[in-house]
Amino acid sequence: MLARWVGLDLTSKGVVRAVLIGRFQPFHMGHLSAVKEILQGFDEAIIAIGSSQFSHTFDNPFTAGERIEMIRLALKEDGQDLARIITVTVPDIGEHRLWVARLVAMCPRFDVAYSNNPFVRLLLEEQGIATRGAELYNREMLNATRIRMLMAEGGDWKRYVPKSVADYIDGLGGVERVRIAKSSATSALFR
Amino acid sequence: MLARWVGLDLTSKGVVRAVLIGRFQPFHMGHLSAVKEILQGFDEAIIAIGSSQFSHTFDNPFTAGERIEMIRLALKEDGQDLARIITVTVPDIGEHRLWVARLVAMCPRFDVAYSNNPFVRLLLEEQGIATRGAELYNREMLNATRIRMLMAEGGDWKRYVPKSVADYIDGLGGVERVRIAKSSATSALFR
Amino acid sequence: MLARWVGLDLTSKGVVRAVLIGRFQPFHMGHLSAVKEILQGFDEAIIAIGSSQFSHTFDNPFTAGERIEMIRLALKEDGQDLARIITVTVPDIGEHRLWVARLVAMCPRFDVAYSNNPFVRLLLEEQGIATRGAELYNREMLNATRIRMLMAEGGDWKRYVPKSVADYIDGLGGVERVRIAKSSATSALFR
Amino acid sequence: MLARWVGLDLTSKGVVRAVLIGRFQPFHMGHLSAVKEILQGFDEAIIAIGSSQFSHTFDNPFTAGERIEMIRLALKEDGQDLARIITVTVPDIGEHRLWVARLVAMCPRFDVAYSNNPFVRLLLEEQGIATRGAELYNREMLNATRIRMLMAEGGDWKRYVPKSVADYIDGLGGVERVRIAKSSATSALFR
Amino acid sequence: MLARWVGLDLTSKGVVRAVLIGRFQPFHMGHLSAVKEILQGFDEAIIAIGSSQFSHTFDNPFTAGERIEMIRLALKEDGQDLARIITVTVPDIGEHRLWVARLVAMCPRFDVAYSNNPFVRLLLEEQGIATRGAELYNREMLNATRIRMLMAEGGDWKRYVPKSVADYIDGLGGVERVRIAKSSATSALFR
Amino acid sequence: MLARWVGLDLTSKGVVRAVLIGRFQPFHMGHLSAVKEILQGFDEAIIAIGSSQFSHTFDNPFTAGERIEMIRLALKEDGQDLARIITVTVPDIGEHRLWVARLVAMCPRFDVAYSNNPFVRLLLEEQGIATRGAELYNREMLNATRIRMLMAEGGDWKRYVPKSVADYIDGLGGVERVRIAKSSATSALFR
Repeated sequence: MLARWVGLDLTSKGVVRAVLIGRFQPFHMGHLSAVKEILQGFDEAIIAIGSSQFSHTFDNPFTAGERIEMIRLALKEDGQDLARIITVTVPDIGEHRLWVARLVAMCPRFDVAYSNNPFVRLLLEEQGIATRGAELYNREMLNATRIRMLMAEGGDWKRYVPKSVADYIDGLGGVERVRIAKSSATSALFR
Repeated sequence: MLARWVGLDLTSKGVVRAVLIGRFQPFHMGHLSAVKEILQGFDEAIIAIGSSQFSHTFDNPFTAGERIEMIRLALKEDGQDLARIITVTVPDIGEHRLWVARLVAMCPRFDVAYSNNPFVRLLLEEQGIATRGAELYNREMLNATRIRMLMAEGGDWKRYVPKSVADYIDGLGGVERVRIAKSSATSALFR
Repeated sequence: MLARWVGLDLTSKGVVRAVLIGRFQPFHMGHLSAVKEILQGFDEAIIAIGSSQFSHTFDNPFTAGERIEMIRLALKEDGQDLARIITVTVPDIGEHRLWVARLVAMCPRFDVAYSNNPFVRLLLEEQGIATRGAELYNREMLNATRIRMLMAEGGDWKRYVPKSVADYIDGLGGVERVRIAKSSATSALFR
Repeated sequence: MLARWVGLDLTSKGVVRAVLIGRFQPFHMGHLSAVKEILQGFDEAIIAIGSSQFSHTFDNPFTAGERIEMIRLALKEDGQDLARIITVTVPDIGEHRLWVARLVAMCPRFDVAYSNNPFVRLLLEEQGIATRGAELYNREMLNATRIRMLMAEGGDWKRYVPKSVADYIDGLGGVERVRIAKSSATSALFR
Repeated sequence: MLARWVGLDLTSKGVVRAVLIGRFQPFHMGHLSAVKEILQGFDEAIIAIGSSQFSHTFDNPFTAGERIEMIRLALKEDGQDLARIITVTVPDIGEHRLWVARLVAMCPRFDVAYSNNPFVRLLLEEQGIATRGAELYNREMLNATRIRMLMAEGGDWKRYVPKSVADYIDGLGGVERVRIAKSSATSALFR
Repeated sequence: MLARWVGLDLTSKGVVRAVLIGRFQPFHMGHLSAVKEILQGFDEAIIAIGSSQFSHTFDNPFTAGERIEMIRLALKEDGQDLARIITVTVPDIGEHRLWVARLVAMCPRFDVAYSNNPFVRLLLEEQGIATRGAELYNREMLNATRIRMLMAEGGDWKRYVPKSVADYIDGLGGVERVRIAKSSATSALFR
């Protein structure tokens, strides 16, 4: 039934999964919406955390572990069943042609990949993996870069993330981390 | 209450977690027993898959994604609540002194680490992380190296892993992979 | 005789070779001209493909294998003898001081290195390797960055590359790849 | 016609190629035989030099550049047309699941892969690439490990490699390098 | 006494050390001032050379070895006792969360870390390491980036570095290297 | 005068240095003897710590920082002037052909390299660097592997290292670390 819903030929392969690909710096309302869209059409949602090895920069302020905490807090707050969620981490690889193989190696078998990034979708499609864009996603407002910018500049970033995520970020001093990472971006170490 | 149970000073820190560190090549009855031990004493169990970047060797035949599938199948078969399980992956790092920092970066906050490997415990203790050995673990029989050896030599390996794991390995041709990886270990490529 | 032609002291060392260093993203008329210049003065031309591990970015859209195909197509179209051409790949190394050693390790023995990049020539000269600039090279017009920009913006890029290269790029969807890579450069993954 | 010969469905794809995968430490009579087998059935032979980043060890004594020289000398000595040969280098990657993607990225498009190593063939077949074993290959005698052992121990290694290869190895002091690398294998640096 | 001076609780731990963290591209008057400040309060100064693997770029023109030479020349010129100085090198690591572990692994035990970079101090403080800013440091004028810019543009850079450092840079052609690295920054290799 | 002593043509190049290459796991009487030999013939001794990134294994139990502490303690105990000693670290590189370039990049300029390892000397000589063996070195008894074995097995290892080194190793629990690393060598993580 689910297989039929997504228009894939998935007869009798058991659990049907989609993978959502992102960096989740931080996990925001748009990400939450995409996960819920997947959970309506698939048995399980794999949440693939890209650039997982990085942290403490303006682009990637939070560690993979911190991002997993945010994802679980947000989904719990929303009443989702965490048993249907699988978080995986995918370290960046300089060799883009190899990235799809790494993604596949890190994930349980999946049937389709969700991403709104044309470049990610190109890489996946070139390797024969079906892709989708998340439809319910308001990219203008719900944009992690914009949220981090608000954090760095003292703006109202909390309205774009689930409350539990905002509290978690506050608890680990995340705003200060983003602010320092941003201002130090152009001045490495002790020049 | 849980905090009290494990003898840790964890007053009011929210969710209490232990991390189980292994490679899970494959996930066997002993691993299952250790996870269950943790779930009795903690809110959530983090299962940290070490050497996560490797696969297709005799020591590490299965990809991280395949190992995650095994873990979830085994716990589901056993009736555990997957919502209380968090699988994470920890790529090996040549620089052992940095491995603990990488483990911490990949995991949600945890309170204690379970391992029966003295070397892993030494690394963790040197960095101030509390460790435990899994008590219910029959290491003589339930040893992943021994299980892989049985797979390579046509022995009865299935009695040491949950049925769902055995079926999964059969389904992906895992025995053949282990057999070939073992016999090719000493002859790389096309000499 | 050839040795004499290039003014090098190469008495009786057998085959005389020069290496042309570039990234060839894509291989264009200027590159072709440089190879022909080398083939007039040397027995064999080594074409060293730098940044060989990268692909699918705006700076490096094509894989090493695709670049090798382009080079061979262009030289064949021009009537050159492919038996006198040796393509090698040189992955970038962050440690520039080691790059010359890597270049030498990847190449058959050579007598001189051709590059029009002052930085590459500095690295080579510091290690005692004789360098030359390719003389017949119209850098204003025949510039790979400019060609990729034309590809991304729908301009007439084909006039700057051999016809066989243009056809090859069309056949693998190269223009679309460059266009997407360029537009995604500032927005990684799923922000 | 060639396409028909090899039993592949290759209608009108242009040049038909097979890739021979090896380390070529050193390139011996068996390798030469395999290349000739390929050249009888395909337009071009790609010779993929694995473990290309390594040298100066007993397992991998020669650099990629030195191996390219051997390959070209041997084929020239045998009267083959070097224009139909493409040497590529494939650095080892710890993550075996990604190795096939790297091989493909380094090579011009090919139609089938030749290897006599079951592990290499398993990796390739799992990714949907057709493989073959080289039929004319006398593995008992023509084995690079055995040849290196003879070099280290003063045996008659020259009968197993083309004369031009033997001369080349002599010229660069290759026997001494193999001998030292072997004896130092168990004693790193300055203990 | 020294321990008391710096306000640390260092009773009877033997030698008291502070580490100064920088890249020293090049080592200038401000760096010298910071080292002297440390030597007044501690038994020994560790000078940790960050980004140690890089050289031959505008940001990092000099090798680690060249930077060590500069540091020793400057301190000798200033009459400092080199026996109280320990230079160490700390290669950058993409995973910032692991950088502190690497720093600690590369250094003899130390009691406090000096840096004027807020980002470095944040990383250190998060891992429980006490940090200080160097007080005597005129960051406006004594800034390595500014000095390199002067070198590239033919300005009077020598007034900001010790005379022995200026002579050393002249001797190895450092100004030319900086100039070429800067102008080639936006044009890699042979486009 | 010193230049004359070592038979090198070093007229007026300033400070004359030799580099001693080792891993120093741990620094023992033989190493001390070699350093003293160098200090008799040269102005300064560079002590290049190889495999510097590794620690916590049986082959490389101690971090680079710990090894630097040992070296300084031993030389101080022996009455040597630490101002004439420069410790540098050289991380291993899989690509041996590049190792000499890395060594040179990490060191202040030097005139000759000391090593008793034939493989290291071969690498250096191939790149045109003069090498020497340390003459005063009793390799039978003063062998770091043997010393570590004694540590693991409860033997009398202290007689082969300076007293200050033995005390330092005791203070950081080094014997326990070596013992655990050795016994865990064949059983990685949590099988």
